[in-house]
Amino acid sequence: MHSNTFYRTHTCGELRMQSVGTTVTLSGWMHRSRDLGGMTFIDLRDRHGITQLVFNMESNAALCEMARKLGREFVICASGVVTERSSKNAQLPTGDIEIIVDKLEILNAAELPPFTMDDETDGGEELRMRYRYLDLRRPQMQQRLMLRANMLKAVREYLDAEGFVEVETPNLIKSTPEGARDFLVPSRMQPGLFYALPQSPQILKQLLMVSGMDRYYQIAKCFRDEDLRGDRQPEFTQIDCEMSFVRQEDVWNMFEGMTKHVFKKVKNIDLPDFIRLPYRDAMKYYGSDKPDLRFDCKIQDLNAVVGGSEFGVFNNVLASNGLVAGIVAKGCSEYSRKQIDELTEFVKAPQRGAGGLIYIKFSQDGSVKSSMDKFFTPEQLMAIGESVGAGKGDLLVIVADKEKKTRKVLGDLRLEMAKRENWIDKNAWSVFWVVDMPLFEPDEETGEPIFAHHPFCSPHPDDFQYMDSDPLRVRAQSYDMVMNGNEILSGSIRIHNKELQEKIFKILGFSEEEKERRFGFMVNAFKYGAPPHGGCAFGFDRWVMLMAGGDTIRDVIPFPKNNNGRDMMMDAPGEVDNDQLRIVGVKLL
Amino acid sequence: MHSNTFYRTHTCGELRMQSVGTTVTLSGWMHRSRDLGGMTFIDLRDRHGITQLVFNMESNAALCEMARKLGREFVICASGVVTERSSKNAQLPTGDIEIIVDKLEILNAAELPPFTMDDETDGGEELRMRYRYLDLRRPQMQQRLMLRANMLKAVREYLDAEGFVEVETPNLIKSTPEGARDFLVPSRMQPGLFYALPQSPQILKQLLMVSGMDRYYQIAKCFRDEDLRGDRQPEFTQIDCEMSFVRQEDVWNMFEGMTKHVFKKVKNIDLPDFIRLPYRDAMKYYGSDKPDLRFDCKIQDLNAVVGGSEFGVFNNVLASNGLVAGIVAKGCSEYSRKQIDELTEFVKAPQRGAGGLIYIKFSQDGSVKSSMDKFFTPEQLMAIGESVGAGKGDLLVIVADKEKKTRKVLGDLRLEMAKRENWIDKNAWSVFWVVDMPLFEPDEETGEPIFAHHPFCSPHPDDFQYMDSDPLRVRAQSYDMVMNGNEILSGSIRIHNKELQEKIFKILGFSEEEKERRFGFMVNAFKYGAPPHGGCAFGFDRWVMLMAGGDTIRDVIPFPKNNNGRDMMMDAPGEVDNDQLRIVGVKLL
Repeated sequence: MHSNTFYRTHTCGELRMQSVGTTVTLSGWMHRSRDLGGMTFIDLRDRHGITQLVFNMESNAALCEMARKLGREFVICASGVVTERSSKNAQLPTGDIEIIVDKLEILNAAELPPFTMDDETDGGEELRMRYRYLDLRRPQMQQRLMLRANMLKAVREYLDAEGFVEVETPNLIKSTPEGARDFLVPSRMQPGLFYALPQSPQILKQLLMVSGMDRYYQIAKCFRDEDLRGDRQPEFTQIDCEMSFVRQEDVWNMFEGMTKHVFKKVKNIDLPDFIRLPYRDAMKYYGSDKPDLRFDCKIQDLNAVVGGSEFGVFNNVLASNGLVAGIVAKGCSEYSRKQIDELTEFVKAPQRGAGGLIYIKFSQDGSVKSSMDKFFTPEQLMAIGESVGAGKGDLLVIVADKEKKTRKVLGDLRLEMAKRENWIDKNAWSVFWVVDMPLFEPDEETGEPIFAHHPFCSPHPDDFQYMDSDPLRVRAQSYDMVMNGNEILSGSIRIHNKELQEKIFKILGFSEEEKERRFGFMVNAFKYGAPPHGGCAFGFDRWVMLMAGGDTIRDVIPFPKNNNGRDMMMDAPGEVDNDQLRIVGVKLL
Repeated sequence: MHSNTFYRTHTCGELRMQSVGTTVTLSGWMHRSRDLGGMTFIDLRDRHGITQLVFNMESNAALCEMARKLGREFVICASGVVTERSSKNAQLPTGDIEIIVDKLEILNAAELPPFTMDDETDGGEELRMRYRYLDLRRPQMQQRLMLRANMLKAVREYLDAEGFVEVETPNLIKSTPEGARDFLVPSRMQPGLFYALPQSPQILKQLLMVSGMDRYYQIAKCFRDEDLRGDRQPEFTQIDCEMSFVRQEDVWNMFEGMTKHVFKKVKNIDLPDFIRLPYRDAMKYYGSDKPDLRFDCKIQDLNAVVGGSEFGVFNNVLASNGLVAGIVAKGCSEYSRKQIDELTEFVKAPQRGAGGLIYIKFSQDGSVKSSMDKFFTPEQLMAIGESVGAGKGDLLVIVADKEKKTRKVLGDLRLEMAKRENWIDKNAWSVFWVVDMPLFEPDEETGEPIFAHHPFCSPHPDDFQYMDSDPLRVRAQSYDMVMNGNEILSGSIRIHNKELQEKIFKILGFSEEEKERRFGFMVNAFKYGAPPHGGCAFGFDRWVMLMAGGDTIRDVIPFPKNNNGRDMMMDAPGEVDNDQLRIVGVKLL
């Protein structure tokens, strides 16, 4: 390690007992100061830690006076002798020592910052975003940025060792057709024409496979001009990967290995082997394509055990091929009326739209109580409970609706119960594959099959036979990695065959002209010998967020944008001169 | 290493004698085939190498027929037994063995490609750019991309070990003031406002220093909307670095170390310690701020030895404080009239604009011949020659003009002579620092001092005293790294002090309003305790180009743009719908 000794011989996180007696120089920020009688103590902070500086009025009054005048966040350089502390601080790695300062220089003064540089800061999010450069001084934020860097390092270590070549693809490209809206960049040299920023390097990485690069990766900035509801950013980071001469299993093994490597390197956690959960099972048991499996609580079908009563709700659902199903909330039999009402409101909320919630409480005393007491005898209710493994002390909550809605609502309710009942061990990790996604999905309005992924995703070879007769039955060679209920990877085996690609374009209803305009160069490339290939992309921001224990991806992005797409610190986007617009051939509306 | 054995057990570059007798599966591209009597030989190619497949008409006629029908660039999968070759190929790492194929599958057919996949291809640049995915199949291009990846790996290895944290800064930012034109991105959510793509992360990396990140790096895509004369690209890659609590020496030591590390890792070359050449010496001796020091041939001042003649050209130049200077071309005394004329045309070309070239030839036979025979005696000419170390067999070429022009012209002529005379050892490396750049330069037209760098570059502390009285004398704490006559790094110690920064803005003539609009958030940030800091950025494309022995940076950029800023392969930039424009609030002029 190169060292320079002008501004510092050590960082503020480095000194221990073995340095006692040596003279050192430290630089950093004045984090906190305390005057105690004739002594002044200063916590000097840098990214590496905090070291205590000591000034003594008796031995050096001028220096001590100078130290007392230092404001918060002043940048200083101090020299002195490392000394054992009389009262040690076990909370600090440097807490055994302090520096008796004999030389002090103010490198830069500071105005009083708008909030404190502590993990529990007094600054709200808007203020912290406006002064992001100060927000990033907080130890928590610095640790998050370092975690992010360490994860990238572990990712590269693994991929380099596996023979992946890091290739940079361009950011000024042609408008691509991946669903979301492109950010456009007007061209000055060819006024009236536009570049687009990449939504992902999808096409380019497939062309790299055509070019024989074999194994590719890139830590890629991607851009999507979407409305920023939820936890999205207009620019975000993907770990983008592609491999030639592979089947699904090869991709799964490779990136399961990578994920385990990163967990081991960064958190010293040995993840168990990932299960490969078929999409249909994920939907059936958890009502979600990205279930959180840190707790069990499966959705259980009840059609077979709830028939034959006078209960109209069930009978209508059963008659119309709907689904009655429930989840068992262990230990919740004593839920109050108010609590049950809250759950009912939850399932009836507009984004879920269930008609209501039915419950059966199996009390500790052996009695049973239900919102359908009128239609079922206690024995029938006990039998329903037995069929799903609900015992004394448990609550069975039931939804009856169209199958898709029943599963979705119960999937959401499952997560809600986990939150209410603290079912999730905060230190647990649930990481696994969801596989066998459908190639098509029914259009929300017409019910017609529409493509569920990008148009380069290969159908499952076992299901080719249903392509025309029963397209909704066709599985794609498409997969996600799910981490604690978040999709953090999405990928597929791609179509490498020109004829199959043409067929898919036809099913998607692209005209020859549209196909040529949007994918012409790609279709052309595939004429010259494309290898079988597939890959994936990790949503890196989300992965870092999960590992950092953050609440939003903004917590792990150094300079994020707010929900209006604004960078509050830089005040971007901003106005530009008319001249700047004129030379790129556009004007404001 | 994870292996999959469905498509291949080995790559095409891997098999050696020790595998003889084993059954293997390989996949790749049909590179070349030869039919020899009853045998067919196929060179199977992937990124890792070439392996020979053998088909025998006698032992398996059907398979051999199938092999004979394979076209160039077909993608195939072949299994068989590794066998020792009877006639080995010492040119190929796999040349000792071949595969006796017993199973062959065509994974994908290919149309005949528009050029051959060899280093010496028959495709011209435009064709190769249009079919870049095929161009990248050529071994040379694959090696270049792998070299690029290996260099990045070595860079990160070094910087990670030195405690640098990789931080990603945003690409959708505020229009920055770094001299070149910004690419603009209209905002949909705030129509009428624009993001800019970063010309460099300069301001953001300085803010990261304010935030205490201490040591930062990023492999950063940068964007400049400049006319693409010469060897420029609208987007290019920088290795962007910044350090806190450093002086110039610390930055130099750090990145000299990094450069040596990369050379050692990637080329196994031990670079000697870098000289630190003051800018004024670079200009004085080589007429360039990025001299090629793979050969010597300094510019030598002649004012002191050419006075007192009747030669008007010299006398006028001497009288007007100009400069007479020359370079000694060793062994060129027998240059013909035609060769001298060519050199004269070279110095008189419009971009150089010298009035003419004066020569003195010191022949092997001891005679002397000069274009100024009329004004100088042979003895005087010999004395001039002696003063610059020109001996028998040498040619002294002289320019007399204003000092700056004389040095510039001779600097160019020095490079031209090196090219003509093959003075440059192609395996030599010249890497060093140019330091002590001037802070200001005289305006081309007015002669007024204008800023030579970005406005955050710190003056040299020894020269503060001349800031008002003699600004052209002030050195900046600014430096370049020069490699084989190319600037590959540029950097400086930044201003961390608010008052000094304000002073520089004032000298640059920024109004309060302009300063606030362009740098407001940065000036504001510096109020809260900015540490002393400095750094640099490597022009990574150029560095890779030099190490790859390429002619242009396009050779080492996977998907470059042409001089009109067009991506020939994707056909970008392209047209977009009026609707797409309307929603971002602009229309075409």
